[in-house]
Amino acid sequence: MEQGFTVWLTGLSGAGKSTIARLLYDELQARGLKVEILDGDVIRQNLSKGLGFSKEDRDTNVLRVAWVCQVLNKHGVAVIAALISPYRETRARVRAMLPRFVEVYVTAPLEELIRRDPKGLYKKALAGEIPNFTGISDPYEPPENPEVECRTHEETPEQSVAKILAHLESRGWIPEGAEAGQ
Amino acid sequence: MEQGFTVWLTGLSGAGKSTIARLLYDELQARGLKVEILDGDVIRQNLSKGLGFSKEDRDTNVLRVAWVCQVLNKHGVAVIAALISPYRETRARVRAMLPRFVEVYVTAPLEELIRRDPKGLYKKALAGEIPNFTGISDPYEPPENPEVECRTHEETPEQSVAKILAHLESRGWIPEGAEAGQ
Repeated sequence: MEQGFTVWLTGLSGAGKSTIARLLYDELQARGLKVEILDGDVIRQNLSKGLGFSKEDRDTNVLRVAWVCQVLNKHGVAVIAALISPYRETRARVRAMLPRFVEVYVTAPLEELIRRDPKGLYKKALAGEIPNFTGISDPYEPPENPEVECRTHEETPEQSVAKILAHLESRGWIPEGAEAGQ
Repeated sequence: MEQGFTVWLTGLSGAGKSTIARLLYDELQARGLKVEILDGDVIRQNLSKGLGFSKEDRDTNVLRVAWVCQVLNKHGVAVIAALISPYRETRARVRAMLPRFVEVYVTAPLEELIRRDPKGLYKKALAGEIPNFTGISDPYEPPENPEVECRTHEETPEQSVAKILAHLESRGWIPEGAEAGQ
């Protein structure tokens, strides 16, 4: 049975993880893969209700998602995980758990994220209304050597996804797309 | 894509859920299916650390497992879930979440379970050392209409598994086994 893989999107709130995840999902499905998105918000609803945003609770959440990735990958499902996952060491533990793992750093300058702020979260965090808000009142440790880096203030979501697909192709984990042969 | 199914083993501690789960796993694998066991003890380690045994925490645990079943079933994986899952209403919610669901009631008289007691848990519970121990200090609501009932004081694990397989065959969810054609 073909082993799946995990594309792990890490980055601050508003950086573009969910947008890239959805586009990537469509592309992988179009190539005939079984795909699942594990998005931070959905996960906190279904898998991690009751967990907070302390380092310990964040780690528990991230490792729990990694366990689900492991089970799905084992059965040939490609998983796109979109979680802030701010701690480097915890992401390293996730990497160690998954035989086929791609770390994608989704990033834009903080001023840009504060400007976007689609859910109004940065505004609240800057006003001191959200404790443990990553990037404002809680740390984010950028990946030192991610497989792919998506700078969403400089590229479109389509360009970001193309980079991830190119990486997956180069690993031989997905068939080449129609465009790649042109 | 072929939809998977969930075999949900419910019953008291020591009734034989894990034994049946492992035998069933081997049989389903031998028939070429993708199979995953979600066993209560493993789940509490990987998915539900921190949850206790109050009704609310038990329900959270059960519904969380059901969510994982849902995702795996969707991608064609057969799941064997072995959890005490003592509350009827919660099991009904699990059933409603899963398009292909088989409830298997694994049971033996309480005196027999107290006699078996491989982990010494009943002894401790009877001594008042384990609060919220299902069957002793916490309720268990037997299924009213399970698809399969395995009375493990009257049948071998092989016989229990044969009944489950026969049910799955009758639903058309698994190919018939070699024995069935003899």
